[in-house]
Amino acid sequence: MARLVMKFGGTSVGSVERIQNVARKVKKEVDAGHEVAVVVSAMSGETNRLVDLTTNVAALHDAREYDVVVSSGEQVTVGLLALALQELGVNARSWLGWQVPIKTNDTHSSARIEEIDCSDIIRRFGEGQVAVCAGFQGVGSDNRITTLGRGGSDTSAVALAAAMNADRCDIYTDVDGIYTADPRIATKAAKLDRITYEEMLELASLGAKVLQTRSVEMAMKHRVKLQVLSSFEDLPGTLVVDEEDIVEQQVVSGVTYTRDEAKVTLQQVSDKPGVAALVFGALADAHVNVDMIVQNVSEDGKATDLTFTVGRKDLDPALKVLDSLKNDVNCKAIVPDPNVVKVSIVGMGMRSHAGVAQTMFSALAEKGINIQVISTSEIKVSVLIAEEYTELAVRTLHTAFNLDAA
Amino acid sequence: MARLVMKFGGTSVGSVERIQNVARKVKKEVDAGHEVAVVVSAMSGETNRLVDLTTNVAALHDAREYDVVVSSGEQVTVGLLALALQELGVNARSWLGWQVPIKTNDTHSSARIEEIDCSDIIRRFGEGQVAVCAGFQGVGSDNRITTLGRGGSDTSAVALAAAMNADRCDIYTDVDGIYTADPRIATKAAKLDRITYEEMLELASLGAKVLQTRSVEMAMKHRVKLQVLSSFEDLPGTLVVDEEDIVEQQVVSGVTYTRDEAKVTLQQVSDKPGVAALVFGALADAHVNVDMIVQNVSEDGKATDLTFTVGRKDLDPALKVLDSLKNDVNCKAIVPDPNVVKVSIVGMGMRSHAGVAQTMFSALAEKGINIQVISTSEIKVSVLIAEEYTELAVRTLHTAFNLDAA
Repeated sequence: MARLVMKFGGTSVGSVERIQNVARKVKKEVDAGHEVAVVVSAMSGETNRLVDLTTNVAALHDAREYDVVVSSGEQVTVGLLALALQELGVNARSWLGWQVPIKTNDTHSSARIEEIDCSDIIRRFGEGQVAVCAGFQGVGSDNRITTLGRGGSDTSAVALAAAMNADRCDIYTDVDGIYTADPRIATKAAKLDRITYEEMLELASLGAKVLQTRSVEMAMKHRVKLQVLSSFEDLPGTLVVDEEDIVEQQVVSGVTYTRDEAKVTLQQVSDKPGVAALVFGALADAHVNVDMIVQNVSEDGKATDLTFTVGRKDLDPALKVLDSLKNDVNCKAIVPDPNVVKVSIVGMGMRSHAGVAQTMFSALAEKGINIQVISTSEIKVSVLIAEEYTELAVRTLHTAFNLDAA
Repeated sequence: MARLVMKFGGTSVGSVERIQNVARKVKKEVDAGHEVAVVVSAMSGETNRLVDLTTNVAALHDAREYDVVVSSGEQVTVGLLALALQELGVNARSWLGWQVPIKTNDTHSSARIEEIDCSDIIRRFGEGQVAVCAGFQGVGSDNRITTLGRGGSDTSAVALAAAMNADRCDIYTDVDGIYTADPRIATKAAKLDRITYEEMLELASLGAKVLQTRSVEMAMKHRVKLQVLSSFEDLPGTLVVDEEDIVEQQVVSGVTYTRDEAKVTLQQVSDKPGVAALVFGALADAHVNVDMIVQNVSEDGKATDLTFTVGRKDLDPALKVLDSLKNDVNCKAIVPDPNVVKVSIVGMGMRSHAGVAQTMFSALAEKGINIQVISTSEIKVSVLIAEEYTELAVRTLHTAFNLDAA
């Protein structure tokens, strides 16, 4: 007998039929003798509908009231899933965030979970009851509903699994696992049986949208064994585990990309101390996150190009900040470029293998793909390239690192 | 300065624009210096959508989970209205049933309010804050969401008004008050300025759908001054008040009708003791409410006709019960008739005026309308007639009792 948390996203509960399908999957685990807590999102489309309603009433809205409105989506799903389970003869009841309770801080709309008291749920496991918990929501110190931010149901599931010492947290989704690359682009992409928390974290941060980054961080911290698998097929998925649980480690586990990038170049900036601090200080003050930065040494010691990337949605705010600095920072021109993509390779094996970056750069050069900016960490290398080369770059790297399925 | 409860039904909050319209109405009372609690229903159509979802998942459903699902409709409205008020610069916050808390018994889906603790809301009145409260919902002893049954938001509003000692409870709706008859039928119907609780209670029970019966009972018990008025026009409505607050009392205040009736006749039942007890006992056991009953004295002392009415939706269950009794109750035939309507006159003045029933019967007889069953109380007379005469009967009685507008 194991204790499981099963999490189903919006697509998996997007209709009455799909909710009934989820109920059958849950029943299967219950019949196998497991203790089960289910975490569900709102039915697909529902959260968008609710967000639109709040935006139509008030463009800039009180996050506390926003949370009241959007959290109603998960409330509907837990009730319906509990009913669907009861229809199958499974003892089940719904739990809203405030009922568990899932206590969060008071940062409405992007709250962080602080404490979960599972004692009541665990007691009911003893009576054979399945707990159907609303994802994405919690309750703040003032007894008001909070939400964790978009995609927060993954985090709810992992936090619940940690709090109840679950043996595994299964994240059911519309893909059947983590792939070596986006299968829509790299047709030879293969499903990974296992991946480490660290790799998954890099993949999640670098554009693989299967799991929310925070949920992976939390799983890593609390050593919650995660599984990503399909809601619609009956196949094993990808396990996200400790490094020691992986027998044969690849040098590179996956190739990923994100289009959510934009590049800004300050041409011919005066090469004097304090300019970078001024620019990035002002951007930070405006809550613009800067990702990659490159500054060349100037040839004449007078002026140089300063290039950096920001999230694409932050491009306009960033340009506004730079415009406000134009009296303090002398430069010939400010050149924005939203037509860029960040392609990355990720793998624990990189730490012990030299030449990984070199292999990447050569492979791209051979195809005539110009690398604009580079950034690296212990287990990843990212390059910024022109957006038109996205598919070519991903396929090239997938082949170069021997990831193509046999 | 007064303390007001303002209640808006589903049609009044059916779109973003209508919610903004409600916010303007609330702001007007706040600007006049009043303390305001608003009670709202789900946006029109939303409760039906949620009920359909639960029914599609499980035809016979756990009322506790049903309540979780359907109560989400009001949750959306309170958040949106609080946001709309804030947009107008009004300090407002939303309150869900469990947050107030509005404590109910544990009869899910038709719970009764037991206790409301308004202290937090009243404290915030002192800070100039408007309380936007979810109607229809409460919280049971086990910390689970309960609902009061369809139309329960009227009851929520009156209960809240009683608990906070409000000076008035204004029920905003899509009609602008209580009329002497349904204006769609009686074109000469006039809006009443005032009506007594007792009359309103009879009208609500007899088919006038403006207020939920339970809310009128509660208002009468706690002497909450009610006003029924239009959400869309800016006119005074009808005040529901104590008898002593009405200066000039009409003999008959209104004519009403309900089509939710069905008649059953047991022909030639043996006229012996115990038959009626047997029939009506079995119907009560099957939770079929019997409304009107008539049994003629038999001419020969052997057999008689027994006629009674039930709600139209109860007709099939009633016939099933009667069928199961056919060995115990001898009768020639069981004749159901769903094509009947109950037309009633209501008025406090009846108590002191003789001949009211006689006037009613003569007026109907003059038009050739046959009265099938009669029932009376201190302040109303109801007759069952063939459905095709509904409009004629209502108009005839409206004229006979001098209710036609000048």
